[in-house]
Amino acid sequence: MTKNLPYLLLDIPKCEQNIAFMALKAAKAKVLLRPHFKTHQSKAVGELFRKHGITQITVSSVPMAEYFADAGWNDITIAFPLVPQMAQRINSLAKSIALNVTFSSPQNLMASIDSIDERVGVFIEVDVGHGRSGVPADNTRELALMVNLIGSKSNLVFKGFLTHAGHSYSARDREEVEKLHTSSLSQLAKLRSFWIDQYPNIVISYGDTPTCSISDEFWGVSEIRPGNFVFYDVMQNQIGSCNLSQVALALICPVVDVLAGKQKVILHAGAVHLSKERVDIDGIGCYGLVSRFEGSTWSEPIANAMVTSLSQEHGVVTYSGNVLDDLKPGDLLALLPVHSCLAVDCMGQMFDSQGNVYDVLPKSIR
Amino acid sequence: MTKNLPYLLLDIPKCEQNIAFMALKAAKAKVLLRPHFKTHQSKAVGELFRKHGITQITVSSVPMAEYFADAGWNDITIAFPLVPQMAQRINSLAKSIALNVTFSSPQNLMASIDSIDERVGVFIEVDVGHGRSGVPADNTRELALMVNLIGSKSNLVFKGFLTHAGHSYSARDREEVEKLHTSSLSQLAKLRSFWIDQYPNIVISYGDTPTCSISDEFWGVSEIRPGNFVFYDVMQNQIGSCNLSQVALALICPVVDVLAGKQKVILHAGAVHLSKERVDIDGIGCYGLVSRFEGSTWSEPIANAMVTSLSQEHGVVTYSGNVLDDLKPGDLLALLPVHSCLAVDCMGQMFDSQGNVYDVLPKSIR
Repeated sequence: MTKNLPYLLLDIPKCEQNIAFMALKAAKAKVLLRPHFKTHQSKAVGELFRKHGITQITVSSVPMAEYFADAGWNDITIAFPLVPQMAQRINSLAKSIALNVTFSSPQNLMASIDSIDERVGVFIEVDVGHGRSGVPADNTRELALMVNLIGSKSNLVFKGFLTHAGHSYSARDREEVEKLHTSSLSQLAKLRSFWIDQYPNIVISYGDTPTCSISDEFWGVSEIRPGNFVFYDVMQNQIGSCNLSQVALALICPVVDVLAGKQKVILHAGAVHLSKERVDIDGIGCYGLVSRFEGSTWSEPIANAMVTSLSQEHGVVTYSGNVLDDLKPGDLLALLPVHSCLAVDCMGQMFDSQGNVYDVLPKSIR
Repeated sequence: MTKNLPYLLLDIPKCEQNIAFMALKAAKAKVLLRPHFKTHQSKAVGELFRKHGITQITVSSVPMAEYFADAGWNDITIAFPLVPQMAQRINSLAKSIALNVTFSSPQNLMASIDSIDERVGVFIEVDVGHGRSGVPADNTRELALMVNLIGSKSNLVFKGFLTHAGHSYSARDREEVEKLHTSSLSQLAKLRSFWIDQYPNIVISYGDTPTCSISDEFWGVSEIRPGNFVFYDVMQNQIGSCNLSQVALALICPVVDVLAGKQKVILHAGAVHLSKERVDIDGIGCYGLVSRFEGSTWSEPIANAMVTSLSQEHGVVTYSGNVLDDLKPGDLLALLPVHSCLAVDCMGQMFDSQGNVYDVLPKSIR
């Protein structure tokens, strides 16, 4: 496997520290860690989790579930509402593994319920404030309707309620994350109290990287499903989920040109490598932070430098002072991505410092 | 080849009309059409161009040049400044095809010049106002330095000057595009006049989809290199380059849920499918327009509906009135992407209405 430029470099010790950190937190809080594998989409990265005792995982699509089942993962939750077109593939996959699916409303459930013949676990998605999908956690009538529908089919096993507190991604400090986390836990605890007598094994499935990174408290929750934490990124750093030293993935890219007079560096690193995900830092749109490449890893990000513009293959770094004046064409930089999940999806593979390749679910089978 | 959902659907007759339109325009203006293949990155789409007489192409990376050379394209310009790491691959490729490379500054040129041993054509990138890379078109001293350096190596053939008027993408109407186009042509004409005596065959290579779509006038230009026009997209429509009926590519995706009370539709169509490219329409961030899927093609976009939010796998359509109240989970919609180049890069393959697959340069060999 030859590495083209640019390529994604993994810092495996950092990945493992990130996994160990979250596994320890889950153990202390007595919740199951069922990590979301959509961040890395990679069988090889999955093996790092296995080393840390993980046996149950989360994915976001049916092809992703098939891909990881093929690598021996036999307890998988698809935390994305099912569409009826996928029902037959759910039936096939459920023959060989413990599979949980998710429904987000009575309509979404009814569209597929009659096409599922195999034994599958079923989660109902509830909305605790994100406002994207799921039944509002206090809408007892709709939830009861769904629970009863699920109960009417003997092959469907009602597992419990699942939520993604995705509004944590809009938070811009730890305090804000803590506040919405407390509100989420409180809504979930009410839900659990309401149903626990009828379903003593009910699962409350929760978690996104910001809340799971920042809080140690998960009262009433059965399992957490963060994903991004294995790599972290600039967005998570901005939210307060991680230090920049915990970011475990960087895009290694060559300098094309240095425009010292304009305090700009042109890179071969574009939207097809980093994605166009952006965060505002000090009022400026940032597509990535800039580190020196150090062979097997990278330096702390350089202060007063960031990627401020991306086109398909070009990236432009803007800097102040003379911090990058020494660069010349062909020098390699390491960019910390704004959103590591999307950078991985863009690149399709990653490499560790020994040059081993970490493949990603191929686009052609998604 | 099974089509997963979502998938990219090509309207081949529209692609061919778009190609024919630009080929005719180039013929009338007596300029060579050397289309940029970074938009589709697909050997199969390339064959559509061959049907319309295209024999010379543009690409944005060395792997992309190798990929198209493998499909029989034997006259290729890499319109991205070379980095020294690619020099040996340039030497290999130049053994079998007519290959042109681009340098963006004396420093960029000097970093690679001694590593190139094969006969290659060389373009100097000039900046006519985009402000990304290239030597300002009026910097005669730097341009002369580069021309002389190129002339000092007997295997390097100075071809001429190349520019990308990428600031046309910031234009928001045809008049603004026309204005910067005229300014670009004027700068290029001066450059041509200055060098034509010494280099009677000098090539002035120009072109981006907005200017090439909107103008019919290319005085002083030898060749145009638009790429996006084969598919067009919502961004081009906003600039004024095309009608929405010319957009030749759409993402076919299933409805997950309809929140009629909130006038929202949840789709399985996320940032990994459409990219996070966004345009502002009436002050609202738009990630795609929404059409009805009609089996082999799609309807005109539905007024008062657009994709207003994207996460990794979810898309949210916001609409007004009751225009989408009739949808139900599992229904298919066709989304017109904001930026077709990035949607193609995200998806990795396309399909025509007969179900034939149009593969894209694999991520693993880029």
